[in-house]
Amino acid sequence: MLSQSDNELLTKVGPGTPMGELLRRFWIPGLLEEEVPTPDCPPVRLRLLGEDLVAYRDTDGRVGILDNYCPHRRASLFFGRNEEGGLRCVYHGWKFDADGSCVDMPSEPAESNFRDKVRVTAYPAVARGGIVWLYMGPPDLQPEPPAFEWSLLPEGQRVAIKRLEECNWAQAVEGGIDSSHISFLHRNLADLNPDAPKTLHQKYAAGDRSPSFTIKPTDYGFMVGARRNAEEGHQYWRVTQFLTPFYTMIPPVLVRDTDSRNMGYGGHAWVPIDDDNTWTWNLSASPHRPYEESRRGGGLEEALDAKYRPLRNIDNDYELDREMQRSVNYTGIVGINTQDRAVQESMGRVVDRTAEHLGTTDAAVIAFRRRLMRMALALQEGIEPAEASHGDWYRVRSASAVLPTGVPFDVGAAALLTPSSR
Amino acid sequence: MLSQSDNELLTKVGPGTPMGELLRRFWIPGLLEEEVPTPDCPPVRLRLLGEDLVAYRDTDGRVGILDNYCPHRRASLFFGRNEEGGLRCVYHGWKFDADGSCVDMPSEPAESNFRDKVRVTAYPAVARGGIVWLYMGPPDLQPEPPAFEWSLLPEGQRVAIKRLEECNWAQAVEGGIDSSHISFLHRNLADLNPDAPKTLHQKYAAGDRSPSFTIKPTDYGFMVGARRNAEEGHQYWRVTQFLTPFYTMIPPVLVRDTDSRNMGYGGHAWVPIDDDNTWTWNLSASPHRPYEESRRGGGLEEALDAKYRPLRNIDNDYELDREMQRSVNYTGIVGINTQDRAVQESMGRVVDRTAEHLGTTDAAVIAFRRRLMRMALALQEGIEPAEASHGDWYRVRSASAVLPTGVPFDVGAAALLTPSSR
Amino acid sequence: MLSQSDNELLTKVGPGTPMGELLRRFWIPGLLEEEVPTPDCPPVRLRLLGEDLVAYRDTDGRVGILDNYCPHRRASLFFGRNEEGGLRCVYHGWKFDADGSCVDMPSEPAESNFRDKVRVTAYPAVARGGIVWLYMGPPDLQPEPPAFEWSLLPEGQRVAIKRLEECNWAQAVEGGIDSSHISFLHRNLADLNPDAPKTLHQKYAAGDRSPSFTIKPTDYGFMVGARRNAEEGHQYWRVTQFLTPFYTMIPPVLVRDTDSRNMGYGGHAWVPIDDDNTWTWNLSASPHRPYEESRRGGGLEEALDAKYRPLRNIDNDYELDREMQRSVNYTGIVGINTQDRAVQESMGRVVDRTAEHLGTTDAAVIAFRRRLMRMALALQEGIEPAEASHGDWYRVRSASAVLPTGVPFDVGAAALLTPSSR
Repeated sequence: MLSQSDNELLTKVGPGTPMGELLRRFWIPGLLEEEVPTPDCPPVRLRLLGEDLVAYRDTDGRVGILDNYCPHRRASLFFGRNEEGGLRCVYHGWKFDADGSCVDMPSEPAESNFRDKVRVTAYPAVARGGIVWLYMGPPDLQPEPPAFEWSLLPEGQRVAIKRLEECNWAQAVEGGIDSSHISFLHRNLADLNPDAPKTLHQKYAAGDRSPSFTIKPTDYGFMVGARRNAEEGHQYWRVTQFLTPFYTMIPPVLVRDTDSRNMGYGGHAWVPIDDDNTWTWNLSASPHRPYEESRRGGGLEEALDAKYRPLRNIDNDYELDREMQRSVNYTGIVGINTQDRAVQESMGRVVDRTAEHLGTTDAAVIAFRRRLMRMALALQEGIEPAEASHGDWYRVRSASAVLPTGVPFDVGAAALLTPSSR
Repeated sequence: MLSQSDNELLTKVGPGTPMGELLRRFWIPGLLEEEVPTPDCPPVRLRLLGEDLVAYRDTDGRVGILDNYCPHRRASLFFGRNEEGGLRCVYHGWKFDADGSCVDMPSEPAESNFRDKVRVTAYPAVARGGIVWLYMGPPDLQPEPPAFEWSLLPEGQRVAIKRLEECNWAQAVEGGIDSSHISFLHRNLADLNPDAPKTLHQKYAAGDRSPSFTIKPTDYGFMVGARRNAEEGHQYWRVTQFLTPFYTMIPPVLVRDTDSRNMGYGGHAWVPIDDDNTWTWNLSASPHRPYEESRRGGGLEEALDAKYRPLRNIDNDYELDREMQRSVNYTGIVGINTQDRAVQESMGRVVDRTAEHLGTTDAAVIAFRRRLMRMALALQEGIEPAEASHGDWYRVRSASAVLPTGVPFDVGAAALLTPSSR
Repeated sequence: MLSQSDNELLTKVGPGTPMGELLRRFWIPGLLEEEVPTPDCPPVRLRLLGEDLVAYRDTDGRVGILDNYCPHRRASLFFGRNEEGGLRCVYHGWKFDADGSCVDMPSEPAESNFRDKVRVTAYPAVARGGIVWLYMGPPDLQPEPPAFEWSLLPEGQRVAIKRLEECNWAQAVEGGIDSSHISFLHRNLADLNPDAPKTLHQKYAAGDRSPSFTIKPTDYGFMVGARRNAEEGHQYWRVTQFLTPFYTMIPPVLVRDTDSRNMGYGGHAWVPIDDDNTWTWNLSASPHRPYEESRRGGGLEEALDAKYRPLRNIDNDYELDREMQRSVNYTGIVGINTQDRAVQESMGRVVDRTAEHLGTTDAAVIAFRRRLMRMALALQEGIEPAEASHGDWYRVRSASAVLPTGVPFDVGAAALLTPSSR
């Protein structure tokens, strides 16, 4: 449970808010490269942390991220002409490059130096892992982007998908680090059939529905170890990574044995559009082999409209089918991501944390809030977040493993928890 | 005319408001039994007095009314599984019975007693007259439900219909107790034709368009006697009942003689969804014989969408037909209920009572406001409303009668005004 | 750049606001005569300066403009019966004439004099130039309507078109007096082709894209002279009129020579619906000959829905075509009015003038704001606007002319600037 003021501290991300200022210290996944595919392609709208922006790719292939509003009379640059190294406002022809400099101001007399006095807000952008990242913080503090394994793999060995989630970012993150819901929300009712074929994960998860959780703080965030009973003298561990400010890595699915090195590593980023909306990213790495298309099914992908809003959404109750809920799966909703989104959005745009009742399985949720609120308050007192400036810290993996009873997960699974373990 | 603060006192119904607290002392018609037809059927959303709720029928056929938000992390219980005596949240499997007790908490360790510490807000519910009623007030003050005649008749001799009205409840009630609009809003222009066949009611109403009104306070509310001239030495009385907090009973239509005992008795309840929306109920009793289908026409029923919103609504100006308005009826709108709803909604979500001008025909409107505001203020001072705890007071009827000139309506029509008059 | 408080002073128009009070001193174009075409036709809704009104034409052909809300219980008079010299509320039959007097109150007893005590707010209305004008100010200050040339011409020699613009009125006016955007926003890319046939205007505009502007204050507002280089020893002048509070006259297009007397004179009015919406009028005069249909094309007309909202609107990005933007015109949007509306609406409902950067071409924008804010503040101190009471001042024209270098435009083009110059 949080006080109302702490709930606002945690959730509000606009300019000048403590959490908004903290998030602006980090590089942020902004849009898919496919949204600005080619030089001089049409600009696109972009809203992040409550700011209306426009993204475009210039003649040289560089991506620019500008304030949506022309600094002259505030016409939208979305309607602009993307041409010859800059984005030109259609109202009076003022043209801006990706640094925000005004490079042409044809409406002013030739002798005027007004052009040199005008800039548009521009945020640095880099492309990595199929994503355009941007940095919205103080220029003199601009760090390196985080070195996520998936962000550095070549095309074909990584996947980045985004979609709209119609609620605040923090309750989405809380869904992502809450491992205990796996046994319920995403449950397939066939797991009740003792004769149905099962993965090792399904076998252990069905055998022990209330795992115990261990939080292990790290430089970049924390690890959540979920422990279940396994065979005599062994314990089954699933290790979720939380990386500040809004990333998770989901444990790989244990199929046949304790070796997860052949598998992909999936995760999420929950990027605030504003206080009430979030871009939910699926970000996956397959470091040892190409992703097959078949691997990309399993509920991870959702049909989207042209604005990346899922077709299964709150307006149609996520196509909830009560008969399916009775006989096939726990929710009657198709798709793991849709199931997650449904419960997160069902709490309202910003969940009322003054009225919740957290149990022992909510340890990760509590750890997330404390970490982020502490960082935000520290920044208010001038203490910069070290996490933002150590992108190398983010080169980690999640893990699933069966370990001898009593061995701490961070020791027993140490070799699995970084990409260097190949 | 009311001051702005009195207008807010009268209209606001959320938790903690004076009027909201008063209304929570009464049993409230919540939903149709048909909405939760069978044991373990899908739960449905319900919003009343500004609170988001979910209703379901459990395995034993009992209806539960719970807070929409699971007390754990506030996922919506609408998405829940209705199974084996309770509604189970799909997020972590917490299950609640109709009393609000948590009867299963599978995400917590077996040894935990956290389950006993958690409850969800649950409101008592009973089924009567095809309606699920609920009580949202202090448990120790829970009264008996009101003994409306229609609520105690067997199926086939009663009708309950609900539909959405997109304005505050109080202006809807004011429309219901305002007998004088009958001569205008609901007028059929054929009554101008002296040769057209008429009911006795039509004959008297056409002959005297400005009836005089007498308010007679009662234990449960008040009666409104509307007096018109009738044959020499006689007066035509229509007696409308207002029963606190939001019920009316409409006088039966006098067809051929002064005996209304063979007729049905219709009425309304206007139940606040929130400050801006209302469930408008038509509630009718036919104590002496089954309702024929033909009786249910006459403008009382409206085509509704799946969420009980009328198809004739403010978005399409209620399908107003100006040619019909010129030649057929007063409004150009089909249906008595639609005509009422049109004018009530046309005032805006909450009518600005600081700008009205009440005439002599508005005596009942004034009496309603005074009664409700007095009760709400009294409750603020600790005086409980006696009306809420005397459900037997609600066993009354409306009446229409031709009485000798000078006889008070409550004396002359006394035998018609209670069901005991059979 | 304006302070936030000045931006609110400029933009807010509701009852009691300084700008709202100023605008209520002027006659206002309210609706097209075609909206209330015949005696006793259906009433129509009308919203102006934040007030909800209803307009109707009575049995004698007189147009009445009444408060939307019946003074009795505030039912909407839009649903009223327009009959026998007045508009009758359908709730209780109260009837009002175009002066706002209650001429029938059938729900009250015959002996009542309540009828004489009740009035509905009514605004004086006159028809001129195909438009119903209304005056919403203090009755004792009611002036003559402005004597615009177009408003006094016979049908066939004038055009009045209105459509919805979804932003504040002031940024629309600012678009109208901003002559410098012509060279950009409305540019046809064919003007880059030296071999393409050109009007004189196109030739001069292409040759000099940063005209210099001279503001010349007048009794009724100001003139904006835009000067461009022309042939040796000559200058090309375009003179835009701004007439308080919200009118412009656009310079006629110079086709073949310096004589614009054979041409039509077009202009705009931007009439506030409320703080967030505007009726944008196109108002044109053809004093010397009938308008041919062919003259009415050229981007001045837009397809509208039944409520006068353009089909090209912000919901569909004005049907922006990026390929057209690359190869045909500057915006990729069809139609001069649509192009204007697109940039004005793209600023948001009320442009944030605290964040703009005005250049030398914005002299007219600055002059507009100063004039209107000064008038509004003067009125607060009791100084009535002389502009409102001198309708004869509005009998002026815009002009286009090639003048010898050094001759001031108001001198050189004086003969063109009033209708008396025939």
